[in-house]
Amino acid sequence: MRDYKLALLGFGNVGQALGRLLLKKESDIQSQYDLTFSVTGIATEHHGRAINPNGIDLEQALSLIDNGDSLNTLSTRSIPADAFDFIQRCGADVLFENTPVNYQDGQPAVDYLVTALNLGLHAITANKGPVVFAYHQLTHLAKSNGCNFFFESAVMDGAPIFSLFRETLPTAKLNTFHGILNSTTNLILKRMEQGETFDDAVAYAQSIGIAETDPSGDVDGWDAAIKVAALVTVLMDVSIKPYEVDRRGISHLSNKDITKALKESKRWKLLCSAYKDGDRLVARVAPEMVPMDSPFYRIDGTTSIVQFETDVLGKLSIIESDPGPHTTAYGLLADFINAVKGGR
Amino acid sequence: MRDYKLALLGFGNVGQALGRLLLKKESDIQSQYDLTFSVTGIATEHHGRAINPNGIDLEQALSLIDNGDSLNTLSTRSIPADAFDFIQRCGADVLFENTPVNYQDGQPAVDYLVTALNLGLHAITANKGPVVFAYHQLTHLAKSNGCNFFFESAVMDGAPIFSLFRETLPTAKLNTFHGILNSTTNLILKRMEQGETFDDAVAYAQSIGIAETDPSGDVDGWDAAIKVAALVTVLMDVSIKPYEVDRRGISHLSNKDITKALKESKRWKLLCSAYKDGDRLVARVAPEMVPMDSPFYRIDGTTSIVQFETDVLGKLSIIESDPGPHTTAYGLLADFINAVKGGR
Repeated sequence: MRDYKLALLGFGNVGQALGRLLLKKESDIQSQYDLTFSVTGIATEHHGRAINPNGIDLEQALSLIDNGDSLNTLSTRSIPADAFDFIQRCGADVLFENTPVNYQDGQPAVDYLVTALNLGLHAITANKGPVVFAYHQLTHLAKSNGCNFFFESAVMDGAPIFSLFRETLPTAKLNTFHGILNSTTNLILKRMEQGETFDDAVAYAQSIGIAETDPSGDVDGWDAAIKVAALVTVLMDVSIKPYEVDRRGISHLSNKDITKALKESKRWKLLCSAYKDGDRLVARVAPEMVPMDSPFYRIDGTTSIVQFETDVLGKLSIIESDPGPHTTAYGLLADFINAVKGGR
Repeated sequence: MRDYKLALLGFGNVGQALGRLLLKKESDIQSQYDLTFSVTGIATEHHGRAINPNGIDLEQALSLIDNGDSLNTLSTRSIPADAFDFIQRCGADVLFENTPVNYQDGQPAVDYLVTALNLGLHAITANKGPVVFAYHQLTHLAKSNGCNFFFESAVMDGAPIFSLFRETLPTAKLNTFHGILNSTTNLILKRMEQGETFDDAVAYAQSIGIAETDPSGDVDGWDAAIKVAALVTVLMDVSIKPYEVDRRGISHLSNKDITKALKESKRWKLLCSAYKDGDRLVARVAPEMVPMDSPFYRIDGTTSIVQFETDVLGKLSIIESDPGPHTTAYGLLADFINAVKGGR
């Protein structure tokens, strides 16, 4: 039986879902993987930070957050001054980094992960930023410190994408992929097919909490572009940045365009794709009209799809339905088990 | 660098594709996994058997088979009397078992694998029979001998299904699955939609080598049922046999049924499914009319799909297109690497 101490940096929707999942799966993890764990640190931006080397009561932490209270009361050590102080003093073996994504340079998440890895912690994140802006640096740093940097939930929530290639597709070369990776635009396009204007559809997506107050990250294709960059960087081993993805959003599409497609039995979808053209890597995010016999035609709402073409299998597609914070949390949990099951 | 000796029992379409893939991926396996290998034995039913502790020249073996010649000339040891003698004397660390499936009891493949595991060889097969009839026995035997029994290619060729759960979905509980797992019936149904009679569609499937001379294994649902039994046995941990699957084939479907479905914008598909109903496991193979918004509607020809519902993710679907002996061979190769990468 090996015991691991976990630290959660970020305790929003995903962090809290991870807390609940850890409670739910504790006995399965012990019986199936011979692993026990305790949470020795939780740090939030606005609801305090706690370190307890003997283990924080997760139910109590979740309940405090539910009530809008601070976690500071759970700390048996002096309250960490900031995230870096937290990482240095949390005493954990594994850091779950769940701070907001930064599309420009991945900071400060990259520095958080560097700090953790330098201290010999396994570093696990659902954050696309560090994957796109520091994948090689962080992977190299992890290796030289004998730990792992895993990020399954960075693309398509907890659906196995990165671990699919890492664990189940040895020596496979990814030649090209196509996918629908942004659910907000997929929902907006569907609402427009039902007759709503673009602005009304955006407002609806905002009202149910899927689109941000500033919806440009989704509708201008930046979220899709950073996901494409993450897939290309990790799975095709070509480092590209989001701004290097040939990117068009959906805001220029009118209801007339939408209707015209429907009349041709087609639908507009914000398609992501990448392929190698000799030494050149072509990566693209753009709205396209897909016909009825396309695998993308029936992908609705928040469902995502990616279709991989490798040198060893034909087309292999993964479809993820009904994602949410709980599925992102599951990707983090899977990363934890995969990071430590090798023995460290 | 670790070196492995491989033995191939069965050298038909899949075995030969594995031979070609081993040649193609030799340097990638060495550079990415620090593994080298040689093939010390190949046994066929009708084209001889060869054992060479110094390694058989794979290109030469493939060329002999191409020319309809015997492999006996490649043997530097006395020619094995039968498959058991071959396993005992092949001197390998890994056995690839690729003999024909037996829907009744999985034999003699089960005994081949028992023999190999008792000798401490990793046992890898694309054969559904041993998975359905001896999964627990073989897995237990493998464990007690410190080796692995893997069978990724038994369902959906080389697409990751078993390794998906084993490696990427730790602690996930599979509650239910639905799928289209038999490509012959899927092709026959499509041909009938295009106006062919059932008999003509079967004859066509036979003419392109997809259906057997006796097509009952496919059209009566036995192939689908054994795949359902394999998925249930391994992924839901309930041992069921193919004859325990509630099974209906497609031979009672008339062109009138097919046309009626099309008029309702539906299509007949031979659907596979299983779910737990309290302590009871319900497993089924039956033709069903699926509507246009079903993920199964657009699955055509030899493409397969399985949609998993677990306690940790929403619906997760895997679609495999364009399978063939080369993709089955890839599943065997992936099993080999996964079996030995842990260190043994």
